[in-house]
Amino acid sequence: MTEETIRILGIDPGLRNTGWGVVEASRGSRLSFVACGSLHSDGDASMGERLAQLQRGLARIIADYAPHEAAIEETFVNRDPQSALKLGQARGVALAAPALAGLEVEEYAANVVKKTVVGNGHADKAQIGMMVRVLLPLSRAESPDAADALAVAICHAHHRAGRIAARKLAAGAR
Amino acid sequence: MTEETIRILGIDPGLRNTGWGVVEASRGSRLSFVACGSLHSDGDASMGERLAQLQRGLARIIADYAPHEAAIEETFVNRDPQSALKLGQARGVALAAPALAGLEVEEYAANVVKKTVVGNGHADKAQIGMMVRVLLPLSRAESPDAADALAVAICHAHHRAGRIAARKLAAGAR
Repeated sequence: MTEETIRILGIDPGLRNTGWGVVEASRGSRLSFVACGSLHSDGDASMGERLAQLQRGLARIIADYAPHEAAIEETFVNRDPQSALKLGQARGVALAAPALAGLEVEEYAANVVKKTVVGNGHADKAQIGMMVRVLLPLSRAESPDAADALAVAICHAHHRAGRIAARKLAAGAR
Repeated sequence: MTEETIRILGIDPGLRNTGWGVVEASRGSRLSFVACGSLHSDGDASMGERLAQLQRGLARIIADYAPHEAAIEETFVNRDPQSALKLGQARGVALAAPALAGLEVEEYAANVVKKTVVGNGHADKAQIGMMVRVLLPLSRAESPDAADALAVAICHAHHRAGRIAARKLAAGAR
């Protein structure tokens, strides 16, 4: 099967800092770096305005880099419900922004991202950052959340074919 | 102080059902009903698409009814972090949608909404629904989340002057 070049946006959502990274995947597993960075919301602004800042930022990145698909880490929450609610709010706009632009958004569990990128589901942030630099030599992720966002994008590049087939199967079964 | 008529959008966010209600407040405390309803997301769609459906729905309501300010209940979460995360995602788009349209979004604790509308911070849903019908005789809230959304809008109508003064004071102090 011949496959076109697919441009993928990875997102590591957070209210204060939302990491983002764009990669291109061609012929299945060949990866190349496009861009990455981190969006920040103004801690003095209201919650609505902070979330709007993140959403406007993501919409601008989607307009600038025109990704075909998006991927986001399924956040593991072992903290109190109040923190989970706050994180969920940032995650909500990070999921909605690509969907509003017509992109499919896939979610990946953190251990799947780590296992795919590092080969170990319990890898730490330093190991992820190192493997991202190995897999995308031209990337210069200046923050851990930008590196994490690139890791999610790499993970989706590896799993997208299977995910898409599974979704078609599930849709056909309904 | 003479005050203009202020149109307020109240939102009761949820992934499956998001209640909304629009009221007008004139000369401080005179209230009138404008519209209310409930937005639903498609349970078979992906999380991103469901959140995008809610956000598009809220954007349409804001365009149709042109509210000046928005209010949302501060969700009380005594459940597990995973549920709080899911609720937070719906709440994130409900906070971002009015902010993206340039509206201030105020948050009110559930017991403040109940105390303002019913006079009792521990009122149940039936009492809230009844008081909403008393305060807005023309309202026909067909679902509890539409009634809750109207209750949040009524709460904001009563507290907005104080909230705005407090925010100006806080901004001046910085």
